[in-house]
Amino acid sequence: MTVQFDRIALIGIGLIGSSLAHDIKRLGLAKDVVITTRSAETLKRAEELQLGDRYTSSAAEAARDADLIIVSVPVGASESVAREIAGSLKPGAIVTDVGSTKASVIAQMQPHMPALAHFIPGHPLAGTEKSGPDAGFPGLFEGRWCIFTPLAGTDETALRRLRSFWETLGSKVDEMDPEHHDKVLAIVSHLPHIIAYNIVGTADDLETVTESEVIKYSASGFRDFTRLAASDPTMWRDVCLHNKDAILEMLARFSEDLAYLQRAIRWGEGDKIFELFNRTRTIRRSIVQAGQDVDAPDFGRPHALDKKP
Amino acid sequence: MTVQFDRIALIGIGLIGSSLAHDIKRLGLAKDVVITTRSAETLKRAEELQLGDRYTSSAAEAARDADLIIVSVPVGASESVAREIAGSLKPGAIVTDVGSTKASVIAQMQPHMPALAHFIPGHPLAGTEKSGPDAGFPGLFEGRWCIFTPLAGTDETALRRLRSFWETLGSKVDEMDPEHHDKVLAIVSHLPHIIAYNIVGTADDLETVTESEVIKYSASGFRDFTRLAASDPTMWRDVCLHNKDAILEMLARFSEDLAYLQRAIRWGEGDKIFELFNRTRTIRRSIVQAGQDVDAPDFGRPHALDKKP
Repeated sequence: MTVQFDRIALIGIGLIGSSLAHDIKRLGLAKDVVITTRSAETLKRAEELQLGDRYTSSAAEAARDADLIIVSVPVGASESVAREIAGSLKPGAIVTDVGSTKASVIAQMQPHMPALAHFIPGHPLAGTEKSGPDAGFPGLFEGRWCIFTPLAGTDETALRRLRSFWETLGSKVDEMDPEHHDKVLAIVSHLPHIIAYNIVGTADDLETVTESEVIKYSASGFRDFTRLAASDPTMWRDVCLHNKDAILEMLARFSEDLAYLQRAIRWGEGDKIFELFNRTRTIRRSIVQAGQDVDAPDFGRPHALDKKP
Repeated sequence: MTVQFDRIALIGIGLIGSSLAHDIKRLGLAKDVVITTRSAETLKRAEELQLGDRYTSSAAEAARDADLIIVSVPVGASESVAREIAGSLKPGAIVTDVGSTKASVIAQMQPHMPALAHFIPGHPLAGTEKSGPDAGFPGLFEGRWCIFTPLAGTDETALRRLRSFWETLGSKVDEMDPEHHDKVLAIVSHLPHIIAYNIVGTADDLETVTESEVIKYSASGFRDFTRLAASDPTMWRDVCLHNKDAILEMLARFSEDLAYLQRAIRWGEGDKIFELFNRTRTIRRSIVQAGQDVDAPDFGRPHALDKKP
C-alpha cells in the first residue's frame, strides 16, 4: 500500500483509535504513527500492543509535525484537546475527529483551530460495545459509513485526502451538515443506546423479579439490549450532554408513542397494537436488503446444533 | 433414540411447532406425528416440508388418540383450541402448550380440560424473529430454558414424562407459579419487544430524518431493535393483551426511569447519567458469564475482515 501521510497522530486510543492504528499499520498508510492519551496506563497498554511507533502523554507533542491528526476522545473532551494541539499544528495539517455528535464538536474545536490547518469533522459509524485499546481490531471500518460534516470553505484537496484515507480503510464516505447529522444519529444511535441503558436499569431495580432470574432468562429478548447498554459510559454520557436538543426531541416522540401503545394495551385495542407490530417488520427487511445487517435468525448467533458438524 | 410417545399431535406449526417437529423426527421420539393448523396454506406447507406423518385441518381429529398434544398457537387462540380438542382427548393424554403468558393460558384452557387428561402449561424460552413453518429448525431448544407452571395436584408421572421430553430436546426445565412466570417474562421478554416495536415505529414516523437514512445508518445501534420488532405481530399482539397487568407495571416503571434520565439530560446532570450507564455494564457481563449470550463483540456478527481467510 501507499503511504498517504508521513506522520499520523492518534489522540485517544480506545476502540476507535486502536482500530485506526491497526488499519494504518496493516495498510502501511503512514511512515510514523504517534499515539497519545491522557491515561498513563492506557498509553502503556497501547505501547505493549505495539499500536504505533511513538508514544507520548502530551497531545501537543503528538500533534507537532503531524500531517493527519485524528481525535478519538469522548466528545466532551474535544475542546481541551483542541486547545492543547492548536499551537503545534504545522501548515497544511489535517485535523479530524470521530465524535458521535458534530455540532458540539465543531463549537468546541473550531474556534481554536489556526487558519493554517484544515479542520474536517468526521464520524465513522462503526464500533462494538467493547472499549479501550484492547478492543480495537483491523477492518472495523470496512463496509461502514463515515460521515463528514465539513465547514464552509473547507479546502478541497484536504477533503479529498481525508476521504481517500477512509476509503482505503474500506469505508463509504457521506457528507451532510452537522445539525442534520446530529438529528439522524439521535434516532439511529443515541436514542437506541439511551433506551437500552434505561431498560437494563429498570430490570436491575425490580423487587419482584430477582437479578439472577433476569440474567438466567435474558435470551428471550432482554439480552439484545444489554449489548448496547455495555457500551462505554463516559463516551455515552458525553453524547447525551452534547446532543441534548436532538436527543430530547427524539425522547419526547418516543415517549408519546409509548404512551399511545400503553393505552392500547390497557384498553385491549388489539387492532392498534397489531398495526404497529406489523408495520415495523418492513423496516427490518429494508435494513437487511441494504446490507446493514445479516438475515440469519437471532443475529446469526450460533445455536447449539450449528456448532456440531 | 427411544420412542417417548406413540402419537404426538402438534397444534399450530409456526416457528415453535415446526422446530418441535424437526426434533421429534430427528430424535425418533414418536411413532406418529399428526399436524394441524387453522390455515390451509400453512398446513400444505408443513406437508411439503414433511414435518409430520399426518396432516389435518381439525384440531379435534389431531388430538384423538394422541399421547402428547402440544399447543403452539398465539396465546389468544388457546381457549378455542381447548374447546376443540377437549372431547377427543384419550385417558392419560398429556396436553401442554408453549405460550409466552401462563396465567391467561391456564384461565383459557383449564376449564375445558377433562379430568382424564393431564394439562401441564409450559413455555420454552426459545425462538428467533422469524415465523411460520419454514422458520423452524432442529436444535432450537438445545441449551434453552423451558418453564413449567404446573397446576396444584398435577400427576407426577405425567410431569416427569413431559420434563424428560424437553430434556431430550436439550432444554433445561424450571418450575414456577404462573403469576411469577408472567412477571419475569414481562421484564425479560415482553417489555423488550414492546420497546423495540415502539422505537422502530417512532423512527418510521419522523419527518426530519428520512426512512432511507434510518436504514442506511442503522448499524449504529438501531438495527439491534429491528430484529425484535420483526417478530410475529399476531403472537405479540396476543402477548400484550394477555399479560396486561404485568406489562403495564413494567411499562410504568420503565417510563418513570426514562423520565428521570430525560430530566438528567435536560439539566446536564452528567453524574446521574454516568451512574446508570456504568451500572448496566455489570448485567451484560453476568449474562455472558451465565452462558446466555456470547461475548464476541457486536453479537459475533461477521465483520468484513473476519470473512476473509
